[in-house]
Amino acid sequence: MATVGAATAVVQTSGDGDAASAASASASATTTTSPATSPSADALEQVAPGLARYQREDLEEGLWARPGLAARDRHLVTLAHLVGSGQTQHLTTYLEDALDAGLTPAEVSETVTHLAFYSGWENAASAVGPLQEVFAARGVSAQDLPAASPDLLPLDQAAEAARAEQVQSTYGEVSQGVVDSTGEVLFRDLWLRPDLAPRDRSLVTVTALVSSGQVQQIPFHLGRAMDNGLTEAEVGETMHQLAFYAGWPKVFSAMPTVGEVLAARR
Amino acid sequence: MATVGAATAVVQTSGDGDAASAASASASATTTTSPATSPSADALEQVAPGLARYQREDLEEGLWARPGLAARDRHLVTLAHLVGSGQTQHLTTYLEDALDAGLTPAEVSETVTHLAFYSGWENAASAVGPLQEVFAARGVSAQDLPAASPDLLPLDQAAEAARAEQVQSTYGEVSQGVVDSTGEVLFRDLWLRPDLAPRDRSLVTVTALVSSGQVQQIPFHLGRAMDNGLTEAEVGETMHQLAFYAGWPKVFSAMPTVGEVLAARR
Amino acid sequence: MATVGAATAVVQTSGDGDAASAASASASATTTTSPATSPSADALEQVAPGLARYQREDLEEGLWARPGLAARDRHLVTLAHLVGSGQTQHLTTYLEDALDAGLTPAEVSETVTHLAFYSGWENAASAVGPLQEVFAARGVSAQDLPAASPDLLPLDQAAEAARAEQVQSTYGEVSQGVVDSTGEVLFRDLWLRPDLAPRDRSLVTVTALVSSGQVQQIPFHLGRAMDNGLTEAEVGETMHQLAFYAGWPKVFSAMPTVGEVLAARR
Repeated sequence: MATVGAATAVVQTSGDGDAASAASASASATTTTSPATSPSADALEQVAPGLARYQREDLEEGLWARPGLAARDRHLVTLAHLVGSGQTQHLTTYLEDALDAGLTPAEVSETVTHLAFYSGWENAASAVGPLQEVFAARGVSAQDLPAASPDLLPLDQAAEAARAEQVQSTYGEVSQGVVDSTGEVLFRDLWLRPDLAPRDRSLVTVTALVSSGQVQQIPFHLGRAMDNGLTEAEVGETMHQLAFYAGWPKVFSAMPTVGEVLAARR
Repeated sequence: MATVGAATAVVQTSGDGDAASAASASASATTTTSPATSPSADALEQVAPGLARYQREDLEEGLWARPGLAARDRHLVTLAHLVGSGQTQHLTTYLEDALDAGLTPAEVSETVTHLAFYSGWENAASAVGPLQEVFAARGVSAQDLPAASPDLLPLDQAAEAARAEQVQSTYGEVSQGVVDSTGEVLFRDLWLRPDLAPRDRSLVTVTALVSSGQVQQIPFHLGRAMDNGLTEAEVGETMHQLAFYAGWPKVFSAMPTVGEVLAARR
Repeated sequence: MATVGAATAVVQTSGDGDAASAASASASATTTTSPATSPSADALEQVAPGLARYQREDLEEGLWARPGLAARDRHLVTLAHLVGSGQTQHLTTYLEDALDAGLTPAEVSETVTHLAFYSGWENAASAVGPLQEVFAARGVSAQDLPAASPDLLPLDQAAEAARAEQVQSTYGEVSQGVVDSTGEVLFRDLWLRPDLAPRDRSLVTVTALVSSGQVQQIPFHLGRAMDNGLTEAEVGETMHQLAFYAGWPKVFSAMPTVGEVLAARR
């Protein structure tokens, strides 16, 4: 997990696939911090001993070890929150940890692409540098990544027609440009790209909504997420993950609406 | 535009007004990326080929080329969003592109000054370094910039009296300090500074509101923007520009309120 | 105060507890700017003369000198806003100024720890580097900081039972994990840590709520703040401080709710 500290970070960012050099880096890393990539447990201890304890007891041994949401999904949620809110200071460490936990380079790449639309273009663009660094260190190449124009997943024509009509009637009088791009770029293209499963794309989207306080947009996307396979238990633990990473207030503000969506589907 | 990639960025940030050296930089720039200032098209291709395609097709050849809102205004909106939300990683590139598109140094300077009050002091302060860098490279000097205390535009006494009374009655019981500063610093000073037109000041303000999710403040400022000359078509395309740059959810959350303002004025 | 410019910043960040070298740094600092830590008055003058004037007249000689909220509290509010919103570019300068104004290293450390939960983990983590730098320069050591597991303040059993029941009934159906962590980690641990007074912890929390636009969470925490000793005058000037630092729109959106809390307690 991303909070595991300097040792992991140093090993991973030095990684060139050479096991010997990685082992050597690991040996020295145990006594070195890497402030450029992450506040290590040592750094936390030095300035905020309470925070260091919470990180160890309530994050590393607590939240991240809980059932209800797979570690790989916790990484997806955490990464989506960080990229979507432009928090890049320790992003290489979080990216390394996410890849170690089983997210593929293609999934991470698509997550950033998806967030360009759901969290703003420049937040995605600001993740490109860290992504380059991490992919280069791991030897990720073009064939590991999604194509620019892959074969798209099939479109659910009925659901898309209903969505399009709702958006047209709500927003058409304000901005036909937004309405058109919503259909053409988002729902008839982005959402159909195959390298991030619709369920994961929904999880990323719901995370972006909670993380940016956009509660009004939750009902549509949470419903879609559950249609795409997200379970109630996973929704609950996603909120728990976000309480720690996006902060309690945003989760408390979102949970009544989340609760209404869950209740309506029971 | 800001997303045009490394070649433009390198030429512009190397710019010292010397055409020969700029041309030389341009020649080499076509094969170099400049990760310090902007993710180039090459960098995007390397880590997120889909995002690179969207940038080319839907931003560069799509959004930025659309009618309804002048390119200069699209830069003003984009810049206001980035400065107002503290997204400084590629800000020098966006600033260069905005100046190339016709925004004057004085307008850019006033935009940052205006955002200190509408997006928080430190977001404006965080743009000062990039601004220094870009202005220095272009030889912008004191006489190109607004005076500290210029002759102010005339005050609309009746409108200001109505605004002051509304703010006093709504907020006076909570904070007379806020009420007083709103009148003295904002509406009897900042808004009357002549180096950014009231219509542009309103466009910057509405952008800051959508970008930070402050929907409740939209009716007053959008009405003021249209009183100041912003057209319905421009409002619609501002929302479209912000869908891409501030993200879809913030625009979707704002549009019902925007629609009510438009409808009430028809 | 944090906007006082380069001279203060340079002296402070060079500080090693050696009075002679500090005095020497001070002598040279009056003619040097330190763009790495803060936009100096000179830097502001160069790119935004109006902003420089507002900083001098309305912040330094205005807001920060006002009665109603102690300078030390204004620093606590400003710091909580900056850390909570991840604005780290000039954070070392703000930290230096806050310590000079009387906040203790232990209080600053606890403020960052508190914000991990109220503004998201990574915003707190992003302040660790600047905190290390400032604490090291001042020779702050482990005995100046809160213990990882100090003796906790006594718990108000009745108030906690009421809070727990309300949270269980509102959120239990959505995420029992969130409900459990709210009690165990936040209200039975974090809030009882003795190195930041409950009144200050509340001021930090209310600041985080206004700064992130989480208006729905204000009634509970503002009521608690006033139970913990925050006065009406201090609430009003906290809003004034945040108008400048978090921006007018967030304060205008919060003030109706703040007003309702104040009115209900009169």
